[in-house]
Amino acid sequence: MNTNIRFPEIKPLKIERYAKIISTGIGLPDRVVTNQDIIDTYGIIATDRAVRYSVGIIERRWVEDEKLEDLVAMAISQCLERAGVDIDMVDRVIYSRLLGDYQIPATSIGALRKLGATTGIPAFDMTCACSGFMHAMDLAIRYIDSGDDYVLVIGGGITSKGIQSWKQPNPKTIFLFGDAVVAMLIGYSEVKQFLASYLMTNHALYDNAFIPFGTRLLKKEDVKIEPELFNMNVINGNVVLESSVEYCRIIADKLLWEAKMTLDEIDYFITSDQSTKIWEAQVKELGIPFEKSLSLFYKYANTVSAMSPLVLDELISTGRLKRGDFVMMQAHGAGASSGGMIFRY
Amino acid sequence: MNTNIRFPEIKPLKIERYAKIISTGIGLPDRVVTNQDIIDTYGIIATDRAVRYSVGIIERRWVEDEKLEDLVAMAISQCLERAGVDIDMVDRVIYSRLLGDYQIPATSIGALRKLGATTGIPAFDMTCACSGFMHAMDLAIRYIDSGDDYVLVIGGGITSKGIQSWKQPNPKTIFLFGDAVVAMLIGYSEVKQFLASYLMTNHALYDNAFIPFGTRLLKKEDVKIEPELFNMNVINGNVVLESSVEYCRIIADKLLWEAKMTLDEIDYFITSDQSTKIWEAQVKELGIPFEKSLSLFYKYANTVSAMSPLVLDELISTGRLKRGDFVMMQAHGAGASSGGMIFRY
Repeated sequence: MNTNIRFPEIKPLKIERYAKIISTGIGLPDRVVTNQDIIDTYGIIATDRAVRYSVGIIERRWVEDEKLEDLVAMAISQCLERAGVDIDMVDRVIYSRLLGDYQIPATSIGALRKLGATTGIPAFDMTCACSGFMHAMDLAIRYIDSGDDYVLVIGGGITSKGIQSWKQPNPKTIFLFGDAVVAMLIGYSEVKQFLASYLMTNHALYDNAFIPFGTRLLKKEDVKIEPELFNMNVINGNVVLESSVEYCRIIADKLLWEAKMTLDEIDYFITSDQSTKIWEAQVKELGIPFEKSLSLFYKYANTVSAMSPLVLDELISTGRLKRGDFVMMQAHGAGASSGGMIFRY
Repeated sequence: MNTNIRFPEIKPLKIERYAKIISTGIGLPDRVVTNQDIIDTYGIIATDRAVRYSVGIIERRWVEDEKLEDLVAMAISQCLERAGVDIDMVDRVIYSRLLGDYQIPATSIGALRKLGATTGIPAFDMTCACSGFMHAMDLAIRYIDSGDDYVLVIGGGITSKGIQSWKQPNPKTIFLFGDAVVAMLIGYSEVKQFLASYLMTNHALYDNAFIPFGTRLLKKEDVKIEPELFNMNVINGNVVLESSVEYCRIIADKLLWEAKMTLDEIDYFITSDQSTKIWEAQVKELGIPFEKSLSLFYKYANTVSAMSPLVLDELISTGRLKRGDFVMMQAHGAGASSGGMIFRY
């Protein structure tokens, strides 16, 4: 695949004040939607078995009445409870979202209200698709370096509402998206835990996968803004798969080189799993044993920037990932934006 | 005014690797729209003179065929040309936008394509309303601290299209918004130039000023997404004015305390000017002579996160601001999010 771009060199982290992951937490809608639910609701010609077999998905969560700020607040609550840290001790909130509850203000501010924060904590949303959580974690460790004690990093959002707005949903994509939010508390560490971080974009794939609505669609004359404009459009799915695999290898090599490690020393490899196939292809590309990775696509579907941190949360909450273990975490945003880190949990 | 929140303490910047502003650049639509143009187009019962007198505005820029990425690329081009820096030398692009060309991918990636970048420079968009540029500058100096050499910070966007989508525009807001993008190159400095930085939010004002469209408006049944949903709604304009004045004072005090300076030592005070009145009220609150500040509201209108950096660009390009001068720069996002910095240009 011709990617048209030169991958930037990995730069060493010039960090004197170290950061670590303190805790994670998730915010999920109560409602579990099965393949059969979707088939029945939209009269799609398919069977649960065929969907499981072809796509690898069993169920996903879709909101009913929950707002996005509810999921964000839920994720933060669980995360802070696990850490024993009060919301008012947090120095900063960075939320990598898709659509917000409003376009502005930032939905993270709505979540702070819901959480009853009494301090005017700095907060902003960023929009960076599936790779957004890597950007946000990268930002957090730089904030700890330059003086913050606690930074909340949030990812994920609500994708189900756009999908359901279609009168006749696209049978190819209706099964693929789910709603979820993940929070991560990053704090000061006496020892170095984040060994390498790498982010890149590829503007050659800017138009390959996108949510079409934007300012260019607001015009003078009668504008028909259809809900369909808020769904993910993928021009070439193979390109998403191929770029994920290609970047996965390049990012892994750069991270390992910078961390002076080999893949054998990595205890867990986490990556974005827009499908079971995309996850498997990355694990195979790196030659990592499957038991050293995990995909939750089968139960959460594509949750955009929540995918990689959902897996991290699962590994932590089930006790598989232990303090001291080394993690390579990556996320790939449909080819246009990717990133990764190596850290010690 | 009861703001309901406790302002966070200002934290010292724990920075060992210093940053400075290298250059700025702007991207403006060609088309200048006068009050009379608007009055004629929309049959509004008003006169140019009355609008000038009551609102303080003469003209603004509105795009015709330009996309947002065009304005972003234009601003970056001018900025980098002034610095003599090639796009491929840039380590990171941070764009504080409103609506993007797409919802995702980030519009900054589209701008990199337009600029013909050959490197896959990490880039993301953030959505943080009028205070977004302060967040982005704050991020940039932390990236320089932890290893970057050049960070591009971008602000502003296209607001005119939502306004024009109204069949019968709101005569109160149709005059108030304009399109503009500003770029700033921040790079490594041997000496300390950024002396203090402060950001805060106030969730008590989360619902006072907002762009209504969001994921909560995408529902199952027939959804009518009107272009009006992409305009700024302000519930109480006085609250925006009052909070700007209140925060302006508190932020100024915290910045001066941290920088160990007095207001007399500040050569220029820059702030967001959502109206001439809001600008004047802030300058008066601080007791700063008007010649030490500047509003461009009269010719650019409310350009969201571009307001403060547009003024900085004007001060630099007209030669008023000289190397070594001290600047206090603030921006206020309708009460929900604010911030400021003191730096030496």
